[in-house]
Amino acid sequence: MQQAPITIRNKIRHGELTQYTSGFAPGFVQCNLVILPKKYADDFSKFCQLNPKPCPLIATSENTGDFTIEKLGHDLDIRTDIPLYRLYEQGELIKEVTDIVDIWQDDFVAFLLGCSFSFEEALLAEGIEIRNISEGKNVPMYKTNIDCTPVNQLEGKMVVSMRPMSPADAIKAIGICSQYPKVHGAPIHIGDPAKLGVLDIDSPDFGDAVSVKEGEVLVFWACGVTPQLAIQNAKPDICITHSPGYMLITDIPNSQMKTATGDLC
Amino acid sequence: MQQAPITIRNKIRHGELTQYTSGFAPGFVQCNLVILPKKYADDFSKFCQLNPKPCPLIATSENTGDFTIEKLGHDLDIRTDIPLYRLYEQGELIKEVTDIVDIWQDDFVAFLLGCSFSFEEALLAEGIEIRNISEGKNVPMYKTNIDCTPVNQLEGKMVVSMRPMSPADAIKAIGICSQYPKVHGAPIHIGDPAKLGVLDIDSPDFGDAVSVKEGEVLVFWACGVTPQLAIQNAKPDICITHSPGYMLITDIPNSQMKTATGDLC
Repeated sequence: MQQAPITIRNKIRHGELTQYTSGFAPGFVQCNLVILPKKYADDFSKFCQLNPKPCPLIATSENTGDFTIEKLGHDLDIRTDIPLYRLYEQGELIKEVTDIVDIWQDDFVAFLLGCSFSFEEALLAEGIEIRNISEGKNVPMYKTNIDCTPVNQLEGKMVVSMRPMSPADAIKAIGICSQYPKVHGAPIHIGDPAKLGVLDIDSPDFGDAVSVKEGEVLVFWACGVTPQLAIQNAKPDICITHSPGYMLITDIPNSQMKTATGDLC
Repeated sequence: MQQAPITIRNKIRHGELTQYTSGFAPGFVQCNLVILPKKYADDFSKFCQLNPKPCPLIATSENTGDFTIEKLGHDLDIRTDIPLYRLYEQGELIKEVTDIVDIWQDDFVAFLLGCSFSFEEALLAEGIEIRNISEGKNVPMYKTNIDCTPVNQLEGKMVVSMRPMSPADAIKAIGICSQYPKVHGAPIHIGDPAKLGVLDIDSPDFGDAVSVKEGEVLVFWACGVTPQLAIQNAKPDICITHSPGYMLITDIPNSQMKTATGDLC
């Protein structure tokens, strides 16, 4: 039986659900999380604005120090409702924790970014095979030679995820994803990985390699790992993110991520 | 100064405008024309329904024998408002004529199909270079190995048009064209022409070859020449079409061809 997002968040909050969130609350938006002290928040907000494809900002804390984000979910507590968090200090990963109640600061601002789960669901619904899903793997991700638009210390290369498809499915996927700009939108590249500086498609920088069949086109999307690289470069005193794959489950239907005007970034 | 569609149609009707219609009445839909006797009309209508990408049906005569199509244009007369027509008998091209008043039959049904001019305009408006336009050529068209869905004697291979683009422009173009299903919609193929049975990209079956730059992706759209091949195969007693490039200029804004739901055919 499907469970409502709020039910799943409550189980996560009470330690009854500790796994990857993929597949939970199908039909609802899941988000990447970045938490930074207020003094870095304006820069990070601008970084998202200037790099909307890897960093599609869906919501932030309404006020500095708020750990509720009512707009994303009723009774949502950003300190407890994700199964696994990562704590960074000076850009270094310090540890993973299952809640951040004890390390929450009054000057924290939470940023929630769109995630590829939403568009993968839309593609599956149209009968498109997603190789990483059918092979039970993490999507392969690659650091590219594309510079993000920097904001002060926030700078770095764009990370992309790759899904191989038949040319016909690639065309359908581009058409569908163009309508979802808040969850990475249209791909940023198709075809030759060398144009992105990716020399070995079988050795992703993050995630797992997937098989590529004869005649398939490689389709590359901007990836939500991008801001983590920029934050590692900026070395803020403290930063908290979700642990990859352990996302925030919101009350927002995926259909609300769809725009009629499309994504022409 | 831009002229209204009705003004241009009147000039065509009175022989004051006899050239290709490309570039006239920008912003308004131009159509491919197929006229057949009533006894073939149901088959052709079904052929369009079953092959919507090459044959996107926008309008037909309201009643058999009608040469006005008020829904497409005020005071429009399908017998006089196209600069050049082609007359076919038993599938053979007999002659080209500047009006069909004398050969109009009471059992004629006119079919108007969407045309690539509409999506080319939408792509240009987004800053995408269209190679055939920038090189002042006809778009290159190729007969493929793809069978149309047949309806009785109406059968044949799909014809495609090809526009080479950078990968980034190809992605934008797919996103845009996906929103215009009534003017051929999303491309049907990207990449290797051999998959369509096209062995020499420099020798199109119709139109002109265009240059392809290093790193560009070949993007293929279903083409309005497709029904002409099917009609040649079906060999109806009589058939009238527009002459390629000499289209019907309608009062319908291109923006009306855009759908929010997109084209997932």
